[in-house]
Amino acid sequence: MITGKNYIGNQLSANGSKTFKTFNPVSNTENEQVYSEASVEEIHEAVALASQAFAEFRSISGERKAAFLNAIADEILALDTELIQTYCSETGLPEGRAMGERGRTVFQLRTFADLVAEGDWVEATIDTAIPDRTPMPKPDVRKLLIPLGPVVVFGASNFPLAYSTAGGDTAAALAAGCPVIVKSHPMHAGTGELVASAIVKAAEKTGMPNGVFSNLNSSGIEVGVELVKHPGVKAVGFTGSIRGGRALLDLAAQREEPIPVFAEMGSINPVVILPEAIQNRGEALAKTYAGSITLGTGQFCTNPGLILGIKSDELTEFTQNLGKDILEIQPSVMLHPNIVGAYEANKSKALSQSDVTIVADYESDVQSNYARQVITTVEGKTFLENPTLHQEVFGPFSLVVQCEDATQLETIIKGLEGQLTGTLIAENSEANEYQDVIAALQNRVGRLIYNGVPTGVEVCPSMVHGGPYPASTDSRFTAVGVSSIKRWARPFSYQDWPNDLLPSELKNENPLNITRTLNGALSKETI
Amino acid sequence: MITGKNYIGNQLSANGSKTFKTFNPVSNTENEQVYSEASVEEIHEAVALASQAFAEFRSISGERKAAFLNAIADEILALDTELIQTYCSETGLPEGRAMGERGRTVFQLRTFADLVAEGDWVEATIDTAIPDRTPMPKPDVRKLLIPLGPVVVFGASNFPLAYSTAGGDTAAALAAGCPVIVKSHPMHAGTGELVASAIVKAAEKTGMPNGVFSNLNSSGIEVGVELVKHPGVKAVGFTGSIRGGRALLDLAAQREEPIPVFAEMGSINPVVILPEAIQNRGEALAKTYAGSITLGTGQFCTNPGLILGIKSDELTEFTQNLGKDILEIQPSVMLHPNIVGAYEANKSKALSQSDVTIVADYESDVQSNYARQVITTVEGKTFLENPTLHQEVFGPFSLVVQCEDATQLETIIKGLEGQLTGTLIAENSEANEYQDVIAALQNRVGRLIYNGVPTGVEVCPSMVHGGPYPASTDSRFTAVGVSSIKRWARPFSYQDWPNDLLPSELKNENPLNITRTLNGALSKETI
Repeated sequence: MITGKNYIGNQLSANGSKTFKTFNPVSNTENEQVYSEASVEEIHEAVALASQAFAEFRSISGERKAAFLNAIADEILALDTELIQTYCSETGLPEGRAMGERGRTVFQLRTFADLVAEGDWVEATIDTAIPDRTPMPKPDVRKLLIPLGPVVVFGASNFPLAYSTAGGDTAAALAAGCPVIVKSHPMHAGTGELVASAIVKAAEKTGMPNGVFSNLNSSGIEVGVELVKHPGVKAVGFTGSIRGGRALLDLAAQREEPIPVFAEMGSINPVVILPEAIQNRGEALAKTYAGSITLGTGQFCTNPGLILGIKSDELTEFTQNLGKDILEIQPSVMLHPNIVGAYEANKSKALSQSDVTIVADYESDVQSNYARQVITTVEGKTFLENPTLHQEVFGPFSLVVQCEDATQLETIIKGLEGQLTGTLIAENSEANEYQDVIAALQNRVGRLIYNGVPTGVEVCPSMVHGGPYPASTDSRFTAVGVSSIKRWARPFSYQDWPNDLLPSELKNENPLNITRTLNGALSKETI
Repeated sequence: MITGKNYIGNQLSANGSKTFKTFNPVSNTENEQVYSEASVEEIHEAVALASQAFAEFRSISGERKAAFLNAIADEILALDTELIQTYCSETGLPEGRAMGERGRTVFQLRTFADLVAEGDWVEATIDTAIPDRTPMPKPDVRKLLIPLGPVVVFGASNFPLAYSTAGGDTAAALAAGCPVIVKSHPMHAGTGELVASAIVKAAEKTGMPNGVFSNLNSSGIEVGVELVKHPGVKAVGFTGSIRGGRALLDLAAQREEPIPVFAEMGSINPVVILPEAIQNRGEALAKTYAGSITLGTGQFCTNPGLILGIKSDELTEFTQNLGKDILEIQPSVMLHPNIVGAYEANKSKALSQSDVTIVADYESDVQSNYARQVITTVEGKTFLENPTLHQEVFGPFSLVVQCEDATQLETIIKGLEGQLTGTLIAENSEANEYQDVIAALQNRVGRLIYNGVPTGVEVCPSMVHGGPYPASTDSRFTAVGVSSIKRWARPFSYQDWPNDLLPSELKNENPLNITRTLNGALSKETI
């Protein structure tokens, strides 16, 4: 049952005076439930509890953390239709999507549970002593990853489950041993509270310290700002706009103790279509991309907002087909009137730039909060000269750039800001000729896709969901996959430490039977 | 032969109008050689060359990078006495130290050469496709670490070789595939130029692209500021003061494209001595610590500047012994008059604080630029209330804090800023009673040492030389050991990429025979 209150640790709390409601974009009405924004006192209490909880939580076993994470997954599933209905009522997204995203969220939690139960993730590294080394004895040094401390997670508007309350950032932080304080996304505060209740229930059932998790409601920026500035907070995870992520990064950098911010932000996900491919498969590609651009009403961070090709009749034909195909797709609802407003504003800005040709613009009437898809095209020169055209238009929008030649294509790619993904559409026979283009693209993105679409982010150890700024604030980390735990952990060394005082991961007996780097070689051996 | 010029890529260059000299603190005179500070044009040219070089350097094989790194080591050794003499003349450090540091530098270069020749460091991770998975086929995704781009390295005053021109930051960055631009430390510009000449020679001999390395002279902050703000620079490595490191961190954070700064900065390296240990071994400990505090004239970042004990007759006796022992050590020369000046100023500031007792102060006359060692002591309460006493006094200085009890000891540790190291001096029988103290200490440091001294940083895979801010600007990385390469690399994914276009590390055949994570398990198998 949704109460509209915050979770300050395991306690429901609503001491603040500010309230707000969520919005159903399908019915175009506010939802009934009133949410209480966290007060400054509640924020401070949540951080104080998290700091206290950290003292215990950071050294509990991987097995117990796994039980906690699996219990969260179980409790989320137990929320059943209430969760799915709330999700749909706060996002306009269909039930199938809600269930798919719930599946992904549960899968992520269980994947991290497996990771910490197994224990290899701490990268245990042991160099044993050489007491008779000259001129100096070699000490015994042993290293492992340990958690940073309380982490603040900002939920994403477009993924109320997988990138929000119990999403990837939270799952990874809890797995690392960091307490989490979620700044709940105001657009889906109900979904957030339900998931928070599942986490709190799981924490209680598995005996986690009070404060290991808190969920704070907020309608504006104040709660987030207060959290990021709080000395008790040691790291920040964010998924959202460049403006939002950068603001948090700047706040964190200005602290007396700067802290890491991993923000996964905007991206236009360039797609490079090579000549032979467009010649052979232009028609099919247009269909595929019309689908990818409008998938989830274009509200994916990996949405293909930029298509780069080399001028040819086939590219012209592809562009026209893309326009035709996209107009055949029924418009769908966006997450919130504010998202629609931003889409319309950004689209208008893009369309009003000089020398932009509109290929397709869904002009028929649509229901409130539905997005009209648009395809535009420009010459390479125009794109190069106008940075406004490089900006993301969050929604079902894409721009086809007609480059003069491969050199201009490469120049354009080199001038792009950092991106989550880059896609190469090519025949195998021609890809080799474009090595410079591919190298340039690699240097601007976190993931390269061959003959596919960028939408769809597989949750697996080899996935990188991140990339050079502004795709993320730190390209050395990923937001998806088990490696994302490294955002919230730091290496730590023990020198000549007595075996019985060492953590299990580093003890001579290797009681957890984990794989360690022992004197330079991977091994499960005892010492 | 030292020319006083900058290396802009492989070319010697001296277009600027600003010049400076280095200083011999032993003879208390300027050295003769005049150095030309890099001009803005030279800075921009170095970055442009580095960016060009990156396009080639980032994809050369590990084997070729290894040859380059080993050639640097060879060329440094070939500099022979000229290097050692220049080093001594610019630092006042003895020949033995110069040779030891050269050995360490060469060892680091060869260690990174081995690392990249072997190739496992890229953390290759492969998840193969499951085309018939429902509801969606699983793509083939493969990940490896790739270099960030040109890195600027700021040399350290106190380690002209191991943490400067071809030191750990440079070796790690080159190993990762990042071109390096060194902002040479003005106090040892000659040593820097010699080492730079070795790197350039090695680059030419092994066919590295021009611009893979540049060495820029500077006497003030301008060159460094210009470099860190330059859009072509993608990361920064720094070893030095908190003020300097923080200024660079702030500059990097304010860029349009923020970039990672790994700065290893100040630390007072708390040493906790437990009661039984001081009772049993107080006298010997005093001798050991008098040596550690004055080692290298106290000019180590791991110098023990803070000793924490619980009030007792034995602690009083230890403190007196420490004072007595340290006065028996002959004062030694510091690196530079500016370092002496800072030491004297910081020492005076510490000594002038209320309720600080001077235990030992070397009052006899000393030669110019020699440092007079000092031991002070305060009550726990005084230390808790006065943050000035928490500040580093870079030099042969230490403060013994007499805590009321274990609770106050823990409170003091919890209130410390981040540190590179923490040391526990204990009998095995008593350590277990102080688990809370140990946990608190672990939370503030990057490395814990048992019954040893913090000075001496073993170069090995399990070493962490870093720690919570301000010990470093990002506790998730280390400055020493092969893992330090991770500061300069980012994960990158290929999705459904054709085998013949993949880098060797990810090809089906595993031609480099590296260990990879294949569908979740470590393996050298082919696919």
